[in-house]
Amino acid sequence: MSIREYWKLKQVAVDRYLKKSLPSPKSKPATIHEAMHYSLFAGGKRLRPVLCLAAADAIDPHWEVALPLAGAVECIHTYSLIHDDLPCMDDDDLRRGKPTSHKIYGEGIAVLTGDALLNQAYQLAATASRTKRYSVADLVAELGYAGSSKALIAGQVADIENEGKKITLSQLRYIHQNKTAALIASSIRLGAMAANATPRQLEALTDFGQSLGLAFQVIDDILDITQTSEQLGKSAGKDLTAEKATYPALLGLDGAKKEANRLTQKAYQSLKPLGKKASRLEQIASIMLSREN
Amino acid sequence: MSIREYWKLKQVAVDRYLKKSLPSPKSKPATIHEAMHYSLFAGGKRLRPVLCLAAADAIDPHWEVALPLAGAVECIHTYSLIHDDLPCMDDDDLRRGKPTSHKIYGEGIAVLTGDALLNQAYQLAATASRTKRYSVADLVAELGYAGSSKALIAGQVADIENEGKKITLSQLRYIHQNKTAALIASSIRLGAMAANATPRQLEALTDFGQSLGLAFQVIDDILDITQTSEQLGKSAGKDLTAEKATYPALLGLDGAKKEANRLTQKAYQSLKPLGKKASRLEQIASIMLSREN
Repeated sequence: MSIREYWKLKQVAVDRYLKKSLPSPKSKPATIHEAMHYSLFAGGKRLRPVLCLAAADAIDPHWEVALPLAGAVECIHTYSLIHDDLPCMDDDDLRRGKPTSHKIYGEGIAVLTGDALLNQAYQLAATASRTKRYSVADLVAELGYAGSSKALIAGQVADIENEGKKITLSQLRYIHQNKTAALIASSIRLGAMAANATPRQLEALTDFGQSLGLAFQVIDDILDITQTSEQLGKSAGKDLTAEKATYPALLGLDGAKKEANRLTQKAYQSLKPLGKKASRLEQIASIMLSREN
Repeated sequence: MSIREYWKLKQVAVDRYLKKSLPSPKSKPATIHEAMHYSLFAGGKRLRPVLCLAAADAIDPHWEVALPLAGAVECIHTYSLIHDDLPCMDDDDLRRGKPTSHKIYGEGIAVLTGDALLNQAYQLAATASRTKRYSVADLVAELGYAGSSKALIAGQVADIENEGKKITLSQLRYIHQNKTAALIASSIRLGAMAANATPRQLEALTDFGQSLGLAFQVIDDILDITQTSEQLGKSAGKDLTAEKATYPALLGLDGAKKEANRLTQKAYQSLKPLGKKASRLEQIASIMLSREN
């Protein structure tokens, strides 16, 4: 199976799982369930759940055990996008090439839709199975950390607070580490935990996830200035107009590309202890990092 | 010990637990942690956590086992108030006699503060201990239901959608059941589960919680028109100006009082199977239902 086919297979599995597990878009009250489905099925690439399932697969062929967690991380990712796009936050009209939630449903419902998806993430996580090494409480705690005011939300807060300010590279790294890398790393960790990874395997995958997550964000910064809105499916050049600090702004375009390359190599290195089992993760990373949107 | 002292004791226990368990208001990024503490320690009566702990106490003298869940329900309650008060929702400037979160920190941070508290609820729940009958996954699932698009959020959505519309009594009950009663009932259920309640005990306490939750909301509706803003600590008469359906609007003031009385009696009846052990819960209910704000 090619890596594109492998990705597709995992993507279909998580889509099917989410469709089966969430309240149907017609169930009462229909507005909120419609709005949850609208954002959740807006054509995302399912990067985080695919990483979650591939991490499980690197440990144990029964990777389906990680589906509740793959679904949960996608719910958290989608909620964070909906709230990020609100007029009081990034004020964005376009996401994945479609009008954002508040443009369609209004701001009040968009806030509640994000809330509902965040809550749904934990409802899904609660249905996961415990393993020999990890309890469901461990899995919920891991997800809880990723979504917390010390990780995902810390990054969003720092992002808001630093808009229009000159910041250092270490401050920028703090934002990216929390806003982007933490959930990517936890997606991978959760997949590994659901598959009962050994402490050594979990450590290797954690390192991989952190480097990969940072590399992903550096490339995102680069694409924001080198691509058009049409290519991105969201407003391009937004970081510049919002006076947000980015890697290219701090290091120049070449410097940012070098940093992305350094982090990518570090990510690949981290997979070494897993040997051949990690080949799918390596291939997924290579797709992620060579993407054009 | 008087019931006021009993309430105070439980309130102090949950406050101490929350202070100990949440990131300190000075921890980085300080804005979000300050804002979480601001709303969480704004002088709430801790109704839901006190009910949670008292329910645990009705089953087992080691009621402290329910503290993580008592803390979790208060985090969920507080997050829902912060988001409810946003300009795009109820647009309220005053809560518990103090400026609302978005008035102090701005809308973006207020959205994130609500998000952080919702997420925190699950981080706390993940630290609960399993009992013989209930796993941590059961506890997380119960909390997940209470906060979901089929309970708390369903009520908020229906509330938004029905503003300015003529609605029936059954529609109004749907709103109140979901927006208010569901979390109150789950607070009680979670305390009982943490104390390893038998199925029969849990059923009795569930019935109690549902009737109590509804009665509480009917009285809230009554107070909104009979009390001043100063007495309430929040804007009075808001339901009228927002053209919200309320029990007094549908049944008249006397009719609403009769309904509150009927629900209260039903709540007391539900406690019968628990015998003397339920006396504290009965006393708490009596304080709740005779309150003046």
